[in-house]
Amino acid sequence: MKQTKVISKAVIKRLPRYRRYLGELKKRGVEKISSKDLSELIGYTASQIRQDLNNFGGFGQQGYGYSVENLYKEISNILGLNKEYKTVIVGYGRLGQAMASYIDKNEKQFRIAGIFDVSDKVVNEVFKNAQVYAFNDLKEFVVENDIEIAVITVPREKGQVVADTLVEAGIKGIWNFSSVDLELPDNVCVENVHMSDSLHALAYYMKDK
Amino acid sequence: MKQTKVISKAVIKRLPRYRRYLGELKKRGVEKISSKDLSELIGYTASQIRQDLNNFGGFGQQGYGYSVENLYKEISNILGLNKEYKTVIVGYGRLGQAMASYIDKNEKQFRIAGIFDVSDKVVNEVFKNAQVYAFNDLKEFVVENDIEIAVITVPREKGQVVADTLVEAGIKGIWNFSSVDLELPDNVCVENVHMSDSLHALAYYMKDK
Repeated sequence: MKQTKVISKAVIKRLPRYRRYLGELKKRGVEKISSKDLSELIGYTASQIRQDLNNFGGFGQQGYGYSVENLYKEISNILGLNKEYKTVIVGYGRLGQAMASYIDKNEKQFRIAGIFDVSDKVVNEVFKNAQVYAFNDLKEFVVENDIEIAVITVPREKGQVVADTLVEAGIKGIWNFSSVDLELPDNVCVENVHMSDSLHALAYYMKDK
Repeated sequence: MKQTKVISKAVIKRLPRYRRYLGELKKRGVEKISSKDLSELIGYTASQIRQDLNNFGGFGQQGYGYSVENLYKEISNILGLNKEYKTVIVGYGRLGQAMASYIDKNEKQFRIAGIFDVSDKVVNEVFKNAQVYAFNDLKEFVVENDIEIAVITVPREKGQVVADTLVEAGIKGIWNFSSVDLELPDNVCVENVHMSDSLHALAYYMKDK
């Protein structure tokens, strides 16, 4: 599988969507699908789909289409979902609990090793099989347990402080719900879910209609 | 203000980010800012910023830069944030509560008129000043109260059914957290927050590094 060329961010953003639809097809017992049918389902053009998947070496067979199982597995591999990620959640408020539930239910390979909060009252609680620890213990925990990913679900004003602590501890990836753009060294990956940006885009679309 | 030309989705996605940074500057009492300084803050090039804002008629003054207050207000107007939106939340689980809290704290002009759930046990609870109603009453409530926006925070398998009910009731915009791509008529706007797509993109960036 050739992976030397740089894949555009737009393609990478589409891959999880392919995987999501292929996962649904797999569940429904569908074994193969043409790029035309995949196109109708996902809403990208068939040519877009072929082009996207060619970035990673194709996978389709002339006159047969794509094997759903294979393509799902290949895209999972490309995305790095063929392994487990030790994960912590920082912020045990409603959003932290919602995300812990979500991950526990839908994204089991992001294994929640611990949840961290500043409130003494919640320390030692257990939520979705993960224990709640004191924020002060975060750095040591990340180092000692080789935690790779942190989900930041603290309020805006605490986002950067939490990120700094995680960076010091050697975190590799941050899933950021804190509504600030974090300052991070280049070797730390970040994916932001900026809720308000999304809601404001909705308001714009509605106004524009 | 010229608005006849079509504004690209990329520009629209950047506007909330401009507004977010300008809001921070406003809070810190900053009155004016050059496109260069704005560029360093936001991380877009100064030329990108000028180009984006020129889509809506400029706002900058040669040799002065941008008035923070004015630009914030103008972008708010462009985004349609100068009015109140009557909003309902459908799904009173952890995510629904997290989003109700978030909106109540950060996005007050999206006024939560009601929260809906299928569970009899939670009906009549009050959360962040909003009452919880039975899902069966959703359609009538949306019609009678001229609800414009619905936040869907139900599980994947219920997303489309909820959307269908909302569409029948004449909803105008849907903020969708249900992890499915909804089938909607063209006159209904939708903005999706697909959690897993975002998390999988993070995994890809980490693998790629």
